[in-house]
Amino acid sequence: MFITFEGLDGAGKSTQIVRLKERLGKLAIPVVMTREPGGTAIGDALRQMLLDPGQTQLSEQTETLLYAASRAQLLHEVIKPALEKGALVICDRYVDASIAYQGAGLGLGEEAVARVNAFATSGLKPDLTLLMDLPVETSQSRVAASARDVGPDRIEQRDEAYFERVRNAFMNIAVQEADRVAILDARLTPDELEQEIWHRVSKRLNIITDEKRDEE
Amino acid sequence: MFITFEGLDGAGKSTQIVRLKERLGKLAIPVVMTREPGGTAIGDALRQMLLDPGQTQLSEQTETLLYAASRAQLLHEVIKPALEKGALVICDRYVDASIAYQGAGLGLGEEAVARVNAFATSGLKPDLTLLMDLPVETSQSRVAASARDVGPDRIEQRDEAYFERVRNAFMNIAVQEADRVAILDARLTPDELEQEIWHRVSKRLNIITDEKRDEE
Repeated sequence: MFITFEGLDGAGKSTQIVRLKERLGKLAIPVVMTREPGGTAIGDALRQMLLDPGQTQLSEQTETLLYAASRAQLLHEVIKPALEKGALVICDRYVDASIAYQGAGLGLGEEAVARVNAFATSGLKPDLTLLMDLPVETSQSRVAASARDVGPDRIEQRDEAYFERVRNAFMNIAVQEADRVAILDARLTPDELEQEIWHRVSKRLNIITDEKRDEE
Repeated sequence: MFITFEGLDGAGKSTQIVRLKERLGKLAIPVVMTREPGGTAIGDALRQMLLDPGQTQLSEQTETLLYAASRAQLLHEVIKPALEKGALVICDRYVDASIAYQGAGLGLGEEAVARVNAFATSGLKPDLTLLMDLPVETSQSRVAASARDVGPDRIEQRDEAYFERVRNAFMNIAVQEADRVAILDARLTPDELEQEIWHRVSKRLNIITDEKRDEE
């Protein structure tokens, strides 16, 4: 089973991924956690190129292809082998992020970016995607609060209209693929979000748990 | 005007590119020469990843996407700006190489690789492609003779059947796009090849030269 988290920065993906992993761990379900771009030696090198604010010459097509290359490598080295061993794989961002950020955000076209990514992934889609939706304003103020020391990365430096297009694209995907994508309001508290996410994941996994015991 | 050179290693592309550049220089035609992968800071970093014989984990899709990313960046930083200024651009390898080496050689599919590259290049094709065709045996013995000191790179290490598929794919492209691609027998002498290439380029450029004066 392959689960992805999507959404603007500041939505709380990392926190929820850790909480989900803990819950699954309590049930002795083998979990592999990873993130994009990166997750492999090649992917980490590409991540540096992609997020470096000094990298001002990177073309929009190059950006899209480097994300896709990092993804292809992660799939090859980490995701596919883990799924084949029967592990549950949780990935922080995947194809939907490229469709939203490069396809819609940069205006390269959602379908064109989807095609490049179908090549990168041999068409492998997540079984469940948790879209943590957040208004752009809220995302930006949360990012600003957390990045006070290091400054924004190359992607975070883009303007509000860019992120509005990204948010809308995520929503379009969620509406078109309602069976795969669950929309969560990321303004809920972390505890509320954890509950909502657990409901969806446990339903997919056909897990019936004693909620009270889980809380212990 | 955009000219590319294609063909297996050892075909003599580098020698002929230098000779063509000299001939064009004598006519005061502005020429920009470049090569793939590489030709930009990002492309050179990707070239290292792609050719490093220690890079054994690279997936076939990742390889294809990194070549495409390097190409997109070269187009953005070098080829397009040069063409816009009216220069003649000569490139050592381009999209046909990916279709042949990754699409046919690795078996990823010529059409799938062509689509990824159409995204990378926004569909920009060369005006003229000089395919320097060589039997695989000849290519391999020439490469072995020249690489005695450094050893073969990651791509050069592949087997003969791989390079047969690559050679056939180049030929298929040449037959399908006979208006764009000229096939040259790379077993001709360097001087003969220079003549053949010059005939084709001067015809495209509508140059009428005094061949004797050119030889001085």
